[in-house]
Amino acid sequence: MLARNAGEIARRAGRPIEVSAIATRSPERALAAVDGGTVHPRAGARAVHVSTDLAAMVKRRDVDIVCELIGGIEPARALILEAIAHGKHVVTANKALLAHHGTEIFAAAHAKGVMVAFEGAVAGGVPIIKALREGLSANRIEWIAGIINGTSNFILSEMRARGASFATVLAEAQAKGYAEADPTFDVDGIDAAHKLTIMSAIAFGIPMQFERAFAEGIRGLAGEDIRYAEELGYRIKLLGITRRVPAGDGRAEGVELRVHPTLIPRRQLIANVEGAMNAVLVKGDAVGATLYYGAGAGAEPTASAVIADLVDVTRMHTADPHHRVPHLAFQPDQLSDLAVLPMGEVRTSYYLRLTVDDRPGVLADITRILADRDISIDAMIQKEPSEGEDQTDIILLTHETLEKRVVDAIARIESLATVRGPIVRLRLESLA
Amino acid sequence: MLARNAGEIARRAGRPIEVSAIATRSPERALAAVDGGTVHPRAGARAVHVSTDLAAMVKRRDVDIVCELIGGIEPARALILEAIAHGKHVVTANKALLAHHGTEIFAAAHAKGVMVAFEGAVAGGVPIIKALREGLSANRIEWIAGIINGTSNFILSEMRARGASFATVLAEAQAKGYAEADPTFDVDGIDAAHKLTIMSAIAFGIPMQFERAFAEGIRGLAGEDIRYAEELGYRIKLLGITRRVPAGDGRAEGVELRVHPTLIPRRQLIANVEGAMNAVLVKGDAVGATLYYGAGAGAEPTASAVIADLVDVTRMHTADPHHRVPHLAFQPDQLSDLAVLPMGEVRTSYYLRLTVDDRPGVLADITRILADRDISIDAMIQKEPSEGEDQTDIILLTHETLEKRVVDAIARIESLATVRGPIVRLRLESLA
Repeated sequence: MLARNAGEIARRAGRPIEVSAIATRSPERALAAVDGGTVHPRAGARAVHVSTDLAAMVKRRDVDIVCELIGGIEPARALILEAIAHGKHVVTANKALLAHHGTEIFAAAHAKGVMVAFEGAVAGGVPIIKALREGLSANRIEWIAGIINGTSNFILSEMRARGASFATVLAEAQAKGYAEADPTFDVDGIDAAHKLTIMSAIAFGIPMQFERAFAEGIRGLAGEDIRYAEELGYRIKLLGITRRVPAGDGRAEGVELRVHPTLIPRRQLIANVEGAMNAVLVKGDAVGATLYYGAGAGAEPTASAVIADLVDVTRMHTADPHHRVPHLAFQPDQLSDLAVLPMGEVRTSYYLRLTVDDRPGVLADITRILADRDISIDAMIQKEPSEGEDQTDIILLTHETLEKRVVDAIARIESLATVRGPIVRLRLESLA
Repeated sequence: MLARNAGEIARRAGRPIEVSAIATRSPERALAAVDGGTVHPRAGARAVHVSTDLAAMVKRRDVDIVCELIGGIEPARALILEAIAHGKHVVTANKALLAHHGTEIFAAAHAKGVMVAFEGAVAGGVPIIKALREGLSANRIEWIAGIINGTSNFILSEMRARGASFATVLAEAQAKGYAEADPTFDVDGIDAAHKLTIMSAIAFGIPMQFERAFAEGIRGLAGEDIRYAEELGYRIKLLGITRRVPAGDGRAEGVELRVHPTLIPRRQLIANVEGAMNAVLVKGDAVGATLYYGAGAGAEPTASAVIADLVDVTRMHTADPHHRVPHLAFQPDQLSDLAVLPMGEVRTSYYLRLTVDDRPGVLADITRILADRDISIDAMIQKEPSEGEDQTDIILLTHETLEKRVVDAIARIESLATVRGPIVRLRLESLA
């Protein structure tokens, strides 16, 4: 991605982001990527340094930012602390490490004056950390409820849609590589609890307290409970929930921190998040409920978050702090002159409603006019004429085409003697 | 909000954000707020300065950041340029002004070394500007499609739900204050085109080009087209769409920039955004589709965005640039010791499934046990026993209660001779 989007990233960051060195326990893939030209050496360097020496990497003088992407607690923790001690900024997507040792790591970074960025640790490419930490900073956050484990949500979606059992769907997901051979972290709510711990700390300004998080997974969930819930107007999702609660009802003031299968009203937007997608609902006292949705895992979405962190750190190094983030995302001398297209050149699909005489041949005339302009039909409804009427409605959906062709076709169709009044023309987008 | 959440805001920003002066054409409300104690003077000042002199305000020496919240093009444009010329940072939610004159304003700010922040200009409190500018900075943005005018979405939702006409719903919305007396900006797509112009510039690194945006509103939309669309599996939304398109099909490379009623597949999450809510769907090459949803207008959601901008600018003034944004949102010396509550103290609703003997009095025993523990029932299903079975399922939904009470009630119910096997207990959240 750094190579593929190098131009856009440099235009946004204010300078190129270059790979100096890669340390990995299995260097074959890294070397193949370097040899294949998908990882470029930094400007002036002869090659990307690839080694298996993790400890040496975090001290290299030609490295400004260490990206930790090995996962797990150790050696990740020791390497990150060592990188910080050597004055490196750190970018990590390691949610388990942060949920357990975030407090220690952030204190070390603060003392040393370096940044630790971790957008990729929660909800993949969805910038939820940034939203909580910056976008909603005016709010007293009341609660967060998130679908933050894609594997579990995929399994629940399949169980509901097909009436299949947990065991059946899990086995299929494992066979397809959607679930790991040991699915414990995903299906027992531990991965979700890691992510929830991080969000809770940011929302409420409390230290990371994974050890106090409650996690109950979806392993014991029976198909009949999914069906009963539907009957009552609810859908079951594995939610991570954290909530600030006032004193009362015999309780002290405190924070709820819990992951468990949860019935939620089916009409809620978040109840309709299906498959491996993630979504986080945040309730602030000022903004009300806001929702953040997207792919929560996968190489590209995770890299999207990791590289956004790299851009953040890089922007921080620009000379003028007030222009750390350019007004229009791209540096002001890097704006493009890409033209805004006139509507005739827009490509989309169309809904057309025509009122026509109810007699043979009308449809043939219309479809010929469309075909002559390379406009193909995706779906059609022809209504029966009402009692005593000699006209009827035809509704056509087209495939994608240029607007100017449709404008031309409509003018021609409207000139037919068998077509009454103006044609209703709406645009259609699949948003795929 | 600055007064209500003063503690949280200061803990996040690193220092208090104080109101020095208010300039307004009608000072009565400002004076009432100051007198009522909801606007505090800054520390050390005797009072908040309230005047009608807008031009003098933007030059005041005791002002670091000018918040422009008057709307419209002039005098907002002149005042902002004057504030920038005097070295003030600017926070604005003025989408019309930015869509028309953003290029001029940002250039002036860049030359002077001050910030112009404008999160409130698009989608109210939803931090979509930050997401596009920072959160998705690794991506080549492919397209954005947004429901970014709440009034229009409210009207469309009502037209569909009740089969009412545009004119009827608009008149009701005007009577209730949801729509303005002159609804042109909202229902003719102009407001949405302002917001879309801003998002397009940020997504693609192009100058603001409102004059080239296409806007078609919902005024002419007929109820029968909403119904036909539903019949075909689509919902009609007023969407702002901007897309980068490659050369081809007789077109030059360019950007589409258009607002119009659009059919979208009903199964899409964004098709289910109802009422006055906003939602923006962004497609990046790396992250895929991400969605941002929330209230797009209103005093509190807009203030949420404006104050988030104030926090951003304030954080930029902290001494150490690497700690501009604290790791956990709150400054490290400002973390709270709010306790994580044990599960017994969690308050939520419950779904209980019991298998019971099919005989009189069973339900009475169960409901008495719940009532004794102050657990009230919200809904219930009792299934008929299957042919030849002497047992049946009872499903209960409770109102909110403490988990420890439910744990206790379940133990007691399971000890009844008429109840078979363990009770299934799931938690339920209304997310309201």
